[in-house]
Amino acid sequence: MKIHDAPGFPNPARIRIVLAEKGLESQVQFVKVDLFAAEHKQSAFLAKNPAGVVPVLELDDGSYISECVAITEYLDNLDGHPILTGKTPRQKAVIHMMQKRADDQLIDAVGIYFHHATPGLGARLLAYKSPEWAHRHEWGQRHRDKFVHGLRYFDSVLRGQPYIAGEQFSMADITVFAALLHGDAAGIAIPDDCAALSAWRANVSRRPSVKNRSGQVMDMAA
Amino acid sequence: MKIHDAPGFPNPARIRIVLAEKGLESQVQFVKVDLFAAEHKQSAFLAKNPAGVVPVLELDDGSYISECVAITEYLDNLDGHPILTGKTPRQKAVIHMMQKRADDQLIDAVGIYFHHATPGLGARLLAYKSPEWAHRHEWGQRHRDKFVHGLRYFDSVLRGQPYIAGEQFSMADITVFAALLHGDAAGIAIPDDCAALSAWRANVSRRPSVKNRSGQVMDMAA
Repeated sequence: MKIHDAPGFPNPARIRIVLAEKGLESQVQFVKVDLFAAEHKQSAFLAKNPAGVVPVLELDDGSYISECVAITEYLDNLDGHPILTGKTPRQKAVIHMMQKRADDQLIDAVGIYFHHATPGLGARLLAYKSPEWAHRHEWGQRHRDKFVHGLRYFDSVLRGQPYIAGEQFSMADITVFAALLHGDAAGIAIPDDCAALSAWRANVSRRPSVKNRSGQVMDMAA
Repeated sequence: MKIHDAPGFPNPARIRIVLAEKGLESQVQFVKVDLFAAEHKQSAFLAKNPAGVVPVLELDDGSYISECVAITEYLDNLDGHPILTGKTPRQKAVIHMMQKRADDQLIDAVGIYFHHATPGLGARLLAYKSPEWAHRHEWGQRHRDKFVHGLRYFDSVLRGQPYIAGEQFSMADITVFAALLHGDAAGIAIPDDCAALSAWRANVSRRPSVKNRSGQVMDMAA
């Protein structure tokens, strides 16, 4: 298998953590995509993923899987023993529910803010974003507010349970953790009164799958 | 089980089709939510689903599952024989990849257009949307364009295979089908040159799970 991604970025970090949790790192070859040069918006990459985002999983038969949830479902189920996407119908449901909330409220919101209301990754990529700066800015600020609102929502969830989808670490925790990395890069901190979210982040940061590669997943924020 | 929804609306239609495909309709009691009165934006409903959207599945123990993907994973896996969300790791991955594309490019896009650039469901609900009409309008139009672009993408997919995720009908087909219902209601037709998408829609419309309830799933467009 190959993963086309860019080390140090939030969505690539999601799959790198999945690979580490599943012990699959040695089975994967990483192919670096130059995001600053907008390589992911050019036709060669769009043939792999028409959405124009990393990461993309390339299977040995040459087919491509994109979208982090889809890649995670694949990797987590390869050995027949899913640990991140749920075993029972209820576990699957709660994990996918919280996963979707994390995507909508955090991942998408901070992405829009970062790319549309800040200089983002620079001029070469900005050419592929909304054409009018003023519009971009207002639209982006709304999504900054949405992200912070989302942080407060997940803080409230974590006041009652140790992980985002309940008692066990899951795909949804990885998504929220990656969104916080993107928040760091965008200059949006966890609000001071979100103690449960901060404690959860410290706990997740100590997992071997995260800790052992913290340099890599933090690069963007540095 | 109970489903809190509004008959005739696109996302509720997704789960009603899932229930019919799985033969589970008789096990569910439907509770109607008054969307025109913005019932789904009030505290009683937000306690069930903080995202403030239908449908919501209420389990017999009183817990709630929201988000169509999560509800579908639950219902499809209840009997241990999933037919809509994939059996193998690759099937799960491709279905979730196409599902996410359908959500991003179609469901979300037409929803934003309908609620932010048209009168949507009327004044009582519009109060919960973006506050400035001019901004709403521009933002909405962009998403109309995104939806039409998405229709062309799925047409291109369907030129090479019978269903959205390959050889078999899946959750991703239901999502695209529901998005087309919302497109009807928003006045956005399938472009004339998207023959594969139109043929696929006619084919899906003939499925018993869709055909036998077409009055219900089409109400909104009427």
